[in-house]
Amino acid sequence: MPKKYKLPAGTIRTTSLDVAALAGVSQSAVSRAFTPGASISPTTRDKVLDAARKLNYVPNSIASSLITHRSNIVALILGDLHNPFYTHVLEAFGREVQARDRQLLVFTLNDEQETDDAIMRLLRYQVDGVILTSAQMSTQMVGMCQNRGIPLVLFNRYIPQSGTFGVRCDNAWGGRQIAEAFLRAGAKSFAMITGDPKGTTSKDRVAGFVERLIESGVSRASIRSYEGDSTYEGASDAVQRMMADPEGLPDALFGINDTMAMGAMDTLRHQFGLSIPEDIMVAGFDDIPEGARLPYQLTTVRQPINRMVRATIDHLSLDGPAQSTDLPHDLPIRGRVVWRSTVPGDPPAEV
Amino acid sequence: MPKKYKLPAGTIRTTSLDVAALAGVSQSAVSRAFTPGASISPTTRDKVLDAARKLNYVPNSIASSLITHRSNIVALILGDLHNPFYTHVLEAFGREVQARDRQLLVFTLNDEQETDDAIMRLLRYQVDGVILTSAQMSTQMVGMCQNRGIPLVLFNRYIPQSGTFGVRCDNAWGGRQIAEAFLRAGAKSFAMITGDPKGTTSKDRVAGFVERLIESGVSRASIRSYEGDSTYEGASDAVQRMMADPEGLPDALFGINDTMAMGAMDTLRHQFGLSIPEDIMVAGFDDIPEGARLPYQLTTVRQPINRMVRATIDHLSLDGPAQSTDLPHDLPIRGRVVWRSTVPGDPPAEV
Repeated sequence: MPKKYKLPAGTIRTTSLDVAALAGVSQSAVSRAFTPGASISPTTRDKVLDAARKLNYVPNSIASSLITHRSNIVALILGDLHNPFYTHVLEAFGREVQARDRQLLVFTLNDEQETDDAIMRLLRYQVDGVILTSAQMSTQMVGMCQNRGIPLVLFNRYIPQSGTFGVRCDNAWGGRQIAEAFLRAGAKSFAMITGDPKGTTSKDRVAGFVERLIESGVSRASIRSYEGDSTYEGASDAVQRMMADPEGLPDALFGINDTMAMGAMDTLRHQFGLSIPEDIMVAGFDDIPEGARLPYQLTTVRQPINRMVRATIDHLSLDGPAQSTDLPHDLPIRGRVVWRSTVPGDPPAEV
Repeated sequence: MPKKYKLPAGTIRTTSLDVAALAGVSQSAVSRAFTPGASISPTTRDKVLDAARKLNYVPNSIASSLITHRSNIVALILGDLHNPFYTHVLEAFGREVQARDRQLLVFTLNDEQETDDAIMRLLRYQVDGVILTSAQMSTQMVGMCQNRGIPLVLFNRYIPQSGTFGVRCDNAWGGRQIAEAFLRAGAKSFAMITGDPKGTTSKDRVAGFVERLIESGVSRASIRSYEGDSTYEGASDAVQRMMADPEGLPDALFGINDTMAMGAMDTLRHQFGLSIPEDIMVAGFDDIPEGARLPYQLTTVRQPINRMVRATIDHLSLDGPAQSTDLPHDLPIRGRVVWRSTVPGDPPAEV
């Protein structure tokens, strides 16, 4: 620490030697007590932590990161916080990363163009890993992380042929299950409210949904599609356009995320006086807790958030020497259909 | 940087000298270009950033923080992410902190007991400031931040007599306005669904609400109160208890946050078949966007989030020499009543 820095009046800085003396252990034991994954007995660790509390001592992670080249910081780039799904994702990452004695440096982005800037910024913090949940990032930025040896994992998306690791829900599989549910319930005409047209998540859900309908003899041209901007409000606007369409009301509507399905339901009921599922059946995707509430009771596909979050953190190899190249570069994890009351009848078998 | 550290094969580390040479500026100009608030012309800054991009250069904030004692990291301790209000708070802090070229280190807590541990952890990162939004923290931890000269600001709460700074919504004022709205609409019997009994937020809203009712001649004993755990589900349980109460249905129900008011509305309607406001009027607090949706149209008090967030960041004095002692230690900011359809009639004058 440079001598010229003047601490504010009354400031006390205890050193690890003081803690070692009070705890009756070596200075190296004090260091190990504060290092994630270091070998130390629980008794010794408790002695050190007790002494540290009494002396108001905390180690300086910033200084030690210059030696270890580990900052114990994991960067999380979050896109759309208006979708409650990402609130649950943030909470799960917070819990799992903190359980590994690291902290999340969170970047919230207003639009996709900011992702590259966010990565430029986070590289300054020598983070131990980067988790990207927002849609787009340039291959130049992927290259900058790779050049610097910083593990990068994409959450719920992938960049084909980029060499990056991605962990995601099996979105195409989920889309197929929703199509099958609608078909078994007797639907003959179909509409979708889609999300970000550049993101793989919306594209894959749509692809699985359409694929299954076509397998069952539905013509591609008869499957209508409305852009919903991934938001509640965007889905409400999409329903206005759908209702103005001369083709009339479809039997079944797939909101490719729950927030959009909820926006569609509220608009169909409160603005157009329609009943769900009697007049139109609706399904979503994600299984956010809000979709289970009494006014919605939304049939949907559960994303296995906890398994996805743990697989993402495993892919960062925080305690390993380097990110393993043996891991799959695209790891789709299958969720499950959650059957509620917006699609009539019984759940069909998986397809 | 210690020589013994071996970079992964293929890793390139450009230095600020390379960038200075390509940009045709001094090494000190490169440093200033990456320092928040440093004096540099926009032209020079652009030259440096262009060269940095071409060379894949990013400065090392960790190393420079040892000299400047500024990490450019602001810690945000978030409690209950299940309340969408805090998602909006996180988004606003992300936007404002990033606009000041800092980043948020986010701590998500599962319960209040973890706050002290979170502060122990964040002190290791030499953060430039701490924003605490969750309910409880010990005076010992307040003292540790003060001893280390780390600015601490409480968001939407205060710790009386602790010497800490707090920025919050004027919760008692808001509670008074809801009481007045119910009285003007003709309500004679009242109930509240309350939040965290230890937090000042719930206590102050309740105090303002009760104070105004008593001023108007309502007896304290006749104002019923049910604990709702600050959550949608807790409020639904509270409504079950309220409906089982032999005193019968009150005329008006105050959910002291919007999430609880929404949980109460859904339960009253879908489980007990009641109409709002015909059978019972309801109001909330916060003005989360979800409360404005078609099924709710909730009358509430808007928290002035953006003003509160900016005042909180100003209180951190990120660019100043030290946190000013002239600032008010408790800064309540008045919101405004948002009048929708869960309370009948017209909005009353402010009281």
